[in-house]
Amino acid sequence: MTSTSTKVPVTSAEARAEFRENRLAQPTSGMAPGFVQANLAILPRESAFEFLLFCQRNPKPCPVIDVIEAGSVEPKISTPGADIRTDGPRYLVYRDGVATDELLDLKSVWRDDLVSFLLGCSFSFEHALIENGITLPHWETDKNVAMFRTNLQTTPAGPFSGPMVVSMRWIPVDKVVRAVQATTRFPNTHGAPVHVGNPEAIGVADPMKPDFGDSWEPAHPSDVPVFWACGVTPQAVAMASKPPLMITHAPGHMFLTDLRDEDLAVL
Amino acid sequence: MTSTSTKVPVTSAEARAEFRENRLAQPTSGMAPGFVQANLAILPRESAFEFLLFCQRNPKPCPVIDVIEAGSVEPKISTPGADIRTDGPRYLVYRDGVATDELLDLKSVWRDDLVSFLLGCSFSFEHALIENGITLPHWETDKNVAMFRTNLQTTPAGPFSGPMVVSMRWIPVDKVVRAVQATTRFPNTHGAPVHVGNPEAIGVADPMKPDFGDSWEPAHPSDVPVFWACGVTPQAVAMASKPPLMITHAPGHMFLTDLRDEDLAVL
Repeated sequence: MTSTSTKVPVTSAEARAEFRENRLAQPTSGMAPGFVQANLAILPRESAFEFLLFCQRNPKPCPVIDVIEAGSVEPKISTPGADIRTDGPRYLVYRDGVATDELLDLKSVWRDDLVSFLLGCSFSFEHALIENGITLPHWETDKNVAMFRTNLQTTPAGPFSGPMVVSMRWIPVDKVVRAVQATTRFPNTHGAPVHVGNPEAIGVADPMKPDFGDSWEPAHPSDVPVFWACGVTPQAVAMASKPPLMITHAPGHMFLTDLRDEDLAVL
Repeated sequence: MTSTSTKVPVTSAEARAEFRENRLAQPTSGMAPGFVQANLAILPRESAFEFLLFCQRNPKPCPVIDVIEAGSVEPKISTPGADIRTDGPRYLVYRDGVATDELLDLKSVWRDDLVSFLLGCSFSFEHALIENGITLPHWETDKNVAMFRTNLQTTPAGPFSGPMVVSMRWIPVDKVVRAVQATTRFPNTHGAPVHVGNPEAIGVADPMKPDFGDSWEPAHPSDVPVFWACGVTPQAVAMASKPPLMITHAPGHMFLTDLRDEDLAVL
């Protein structure tokens, strides 16, 4: 479970090679810059239609980048030649909604009826914010963004339902419009914000007390809290349905695809 | 099978009420302007995951607007309160890939294992072209756009695969950029063009000889042929897989939703 390498891989292929040999198993923030990183949700085939439909109905929290059908382990659309069982840095196994194992590969638990969903993550749109001159202090530390359960309800599908989880970033007041524009280009990595300003309007009582991640002070008193749909949502929703088996990436340990951020831009 | 009313409904709800009572069963072009019209594909549950996945992998030809799960007949997302079995103007039933019945409602063939997919159609983005000063001559006649099979391959899912079908419109040379911009706003109704100019590059030998629809002369010799992904694609692909049962709308007889065109705009 320890990392035996300290170099930071420059490409996603280099990173996956390290993960495959278990020479590296650390959080992937800042790794292989410019490559799309993905949230991972693996479920038995019997739940696949309803989970894909949940994602289709809730594209902001659940943007689908790639789906590996039962019987295959290769993310053919996003990362041809990769093996989803071995090429991620670290995995969590849930049984009946409870985390039972943290693993470096999935060889011991793999089944031919498992369907793997790769969902967009915030790193791509954060890169767009940075390119537009917006500082994200959590990129310079080991701390995570602030995340909150909201009173925004997802649209249910089958057993999957529940509140939307959002991430919050303090945005300088003169950059709010630019932040909306820059992230609108990336609907497959959560896209435009779901809410700007007034945390209470979406059920966030105190923006300094996140439900997940870390608390952040605004850099300037005039900074505006801006909220984006978060990839924690599909995991939380799926786990609340207590499937007999579900596998995800370990928090912060994303699957690195061969797609580039700009491949996901819609304009 | 005949229309007993000649008035053109102004809202989608008025149109559906006429269809439900079989007082109207005509092509829906120009009906209830501003409301989103949808292609309809109904398949047994056993094919639902792979068909939804095919749509996810091919969003330009197969933009999913709404999915009605097995056991329900109500398009809750797009048209709450409607009944998919009765509220469309005219349906086609295919058995093993062959059209066997044209029906005004689906009461006689409905089964509780059927999943209904509503997919975006070109009317919404054509409205955007018209709003931007681009004349579409087929809107002023009973003729249809020109449609072509191309050498562009869709990304397969399960039994679903095959070439993309496109529709072609002659666009004035000084309006091509505007046409790209205006339709980019509507990814859920086929979105930006898949190709501009040079028909041969996508396997269209003669733009005056369409595979489906009608042939159109350019209004000016300098007009550019511009190609958009077409909703015929998912029907052609699904039928090529010869499912035991598949139900669609009859050509030109779309399902009228309660969504407005602007509801589908991404920016």
